[in-house]
Amino acid sequence: MIDGLLVALIALLVASKLGGALAERLGQPAVLGELLAGVAIGALPLLGLGGLDHVVHDGVVEALAELGVILLLFEVGLSTRLADLVKVGLSAFLVAAIGVLVPMALGYLVGLWLLPGRHPYVPLFLGATLSATSVGITARVLRDMGRVQTPEGQIILGAAVIDDVMGLLVLAVMVGLVGGGGASTGVVLAAVTAKAVGFIVGALILGRWIAPRLFRLASRLRGRGVVFTLALVVCFGLSWVAHAVGLAPIVGAFAAGLVLEGVGFEALLPEGDRLEDLLVPVSTLLVPLFFVRMGLQVDLPALAGGSVLLALALTAVAMLGKQACALAVVTRGADRLTVGLGMIPRGEVGLIFAGMGLRLTIGGRPVLGPGEFAAVVAMVMLTTVLTPPLLKWRLGQAPAGVAEVA
Amino acid sequence: MIDGLLVALIALLVASKLGGALAERLGQPAVLGELLAGVAIGALPLLGLGGLDHVVHDGVVEALAELGVILLLFEVGLSTRLADLVKVGLSAFLVAAIGVLVPMALGYLVGLWLLPGRHPYVPLFLGATLSATSVGITARVLRDMGRVQTPEGQIILGAAVIDDVMGLLVLAVMVGLVGGGGASTGVVLAAVTAKAVGFIVGALILGRWIAPRLFRLASRLRGRGVVFTLALVVCFGLSWVAHAVGLAPIVGAFAAGLVLEGVGFEALLPEGDRLEDLLVPVSTLLVPLFFVRMGLQVDLPALAGGSVLLALALTAVAMLGKQACALAVVTRGADRLTVGLGMIPRGEVGLIFAGMGLRLTIGGRPVLGPGEFAAVVAMVMLTTVLTPPLLKWRLGQAPAGVAEVA
Repeated sequence: MIDGLLVALIALLVASKLGGALAERLGQPAVLGELLAGVAIGALPLLGLGGLDHVVHDGVVEALAELGVILLLFEVGLSTRLADLVKVGLSAFLVAAIGVLVPMALGYLVGLWLLPGRHPYVPLFLGATLSATSVGITARVLRDMGRVQTPEGQIILGAAVIDDVMGLLVLAVMVGLVGGGGASTGVVLAAVTAKAVGFIVGALILGRWIAPRLFRLASRLRGRGVVFTLALVVCFGLSWVAHAVGLAPIVGAFAAGLVLEGVGFEALLPEGDRLEDLLVPVSTLLVPLFFVRMGLQVDLPALAGGSVLLALALTAVAMLGKQACALAVVTRGADRLTVGLGMIPRGEVGLIFAGMGLRLTIGGRPVLGPGEFAAVVAMVMLTTVLTPPLLKWRLGQAPAGVAEVA
Repeated sequence: MIDGLLVALIALLVASKLGGALAERLGQPAVLGELLAGVAIGALPLLGLGGLDHVVHDGVVEALAELGVILLLFEVGLSTRLADLVKVGLSAFLVAAIGVLVPMALGYLVGLWLLPGRHPYVPLFLGATLSATSVGITARVLRDMGRVQTPEGQIILGAAVIDDVMGLLVLAVMVGLVGGGGASTGVVLAAVTAKAVGFIVGALILGRWIAPRLFRLASRLRGRGVVFTLALVVCFGLSWVAHAVGLAPIVGAFAAGLVLEGVGFEALLPEGDRLEDLLVPVSTLLVPLFFVRMGLQVDLPALAGGSVLLALALTAVAMLGKQACALAVVTRGADRLTVGLGMIPRGEVGLIFAGMGLRLTIGGRPVLGPGEFAAVVAMVMLTTVLTPPLLKWRLGQAPAGVAEVA
């Protein structure tokens, strides 16, 4: 077992660094190179080279990649000040709300146009797959370019958290509608909202009160790396709680970063160590695994089997729809186009919706057929791959105009 | 899936730090506390607390623990100079050889005494389970106490590598004998020796020639963490090759550390970073997982079901037998008892032998019955748990008498 894992790690680490270096040489973000390196490895079997087949399905690699994206959002949370996030709160809320509603509406229209004669829930469901932003890609580009602490960065991160809660609500409504439990939908919605909002508020208020005390207590334990280990435990713990209340684990990891941002680690860690610096080697190992693996999951033959027109139409409205977010930016000095571009990537939530659409049936027919599922997957992939260059282009265009919050 | 992993990581990390801190408060090495924390978690179901059952069998945790011990030996290799190892080469070889032969002979006698009337191969097989040292525990104590670079440390590490090759040879002989392939045993032995020795010599000679060139090339790639990632890739790569030629992956990881010890990382890494320092956070996360998990695998009911007399007799000769190693230390100024104590722990190889004994049959009867298997497992556990306090006691007793090689 260990030999398969070692081969997988070697292949993914080498591919990520070669892809990242090539992308940077071409003036693109490293993460784009990592994604495309994954696509290339995934395409090897099409060329008759099947030696790395097991990498795609290796459960350990998948778990390490999940830990990688959790650590990435933890790092981003650590470099975010809660006060800055609150300062852009109204913008973030409006960006999230408009960024959920407009793409859903446009996706509904695409469904009416390209899937005529289907049950009215089908275009609605298709629209829902476009609702939620997946913040991993954007967080990575912001971190790599040192822009987490800009107003745009803060708005995007705040909106991504609210967006995840809204995605949950849309999911609850859809399941209620298609599943026929219309009567209890209101109750379910209230419960989902209460759990998600309760987690975020509770984690931040309780967490920021408990964390410094917990760390002072732990720093009295002897032994190597106690404080660093406890920081990881808090990150994993809040990721787990987020997952338990139905949110993405990365929302919990981001919250953990926000919570620990207020702890005075300088006094607790050995001479000169910063928590952020200690995390770098771990994330250097794990974060690229997430992005290469994301590329690996692109199933080119399945994409080719989908409706090209539907895939392109969905991608277009997915990207244009989030540009409506720009209108919602009320914070002065923030670049609206940056926010709109940063909200483009779709990810797990869209795929979860599409996967449910494959399984749920209306009138004996699946809500989404395999070709429609492939179109949604193509939309997720295209938005993922197109965002890094677009975002880098915009951030590079106006480096002076971006005011630092800090 | 991710939620199970998060719970497992939280439980094991918290247990490891609490166990380690408690052990250190009692003047014991942290690794003893981690082992016993694992035993305690493993015993929870006996108290009716079954919530962490899945942790024992979680494949991802197991893989992370394996990576942890690989990184530990990589770190130890990085802090070892090949020249120092060569300087104690004769002592290391004699220590390994005597440390394999004497415990085997004593184990054979225990078998004749406590398992009378069985096929002559049975006591021989029992003796073979005592042959190979498992260097993980000793490496951990040496690293934690800063004694890797002492003559004793170097002799133990050198002997552990040679010991692993000899373990392979014993395994090949046993399989040849019991499997009945007597005619080809000589050929198999020659092939096994050639592969193992070829790997070690090849890795060190070729590796030390290729590595600096490879790193200078890689350092011209752009991107974050290229040099650090390549160091991990070399570590994983040599671990994989070691596994492929039948050696323990940790022998490959140790060889990788020796190979990279000669690379001038100061010039390649960003300002002030040392490869050893970058590894610390990763090993802080992963290494304790290995030792807690080792404790977790202690199956108390199975131990209770074994023959107590056989278990105690095997443990006694396992510990005494390795003290014969002390006679083989020809390096001046090295403390012989430290070397003897450092060679005590048995691990995977003993368990692999015992597991084969369960499956192989002679005259329709398994070579080792379940009670005999449990006695071997008890021997492995006892040698593992007793070594850290013994070694710490001895190292603490003569801190001044230990000459630094460096």
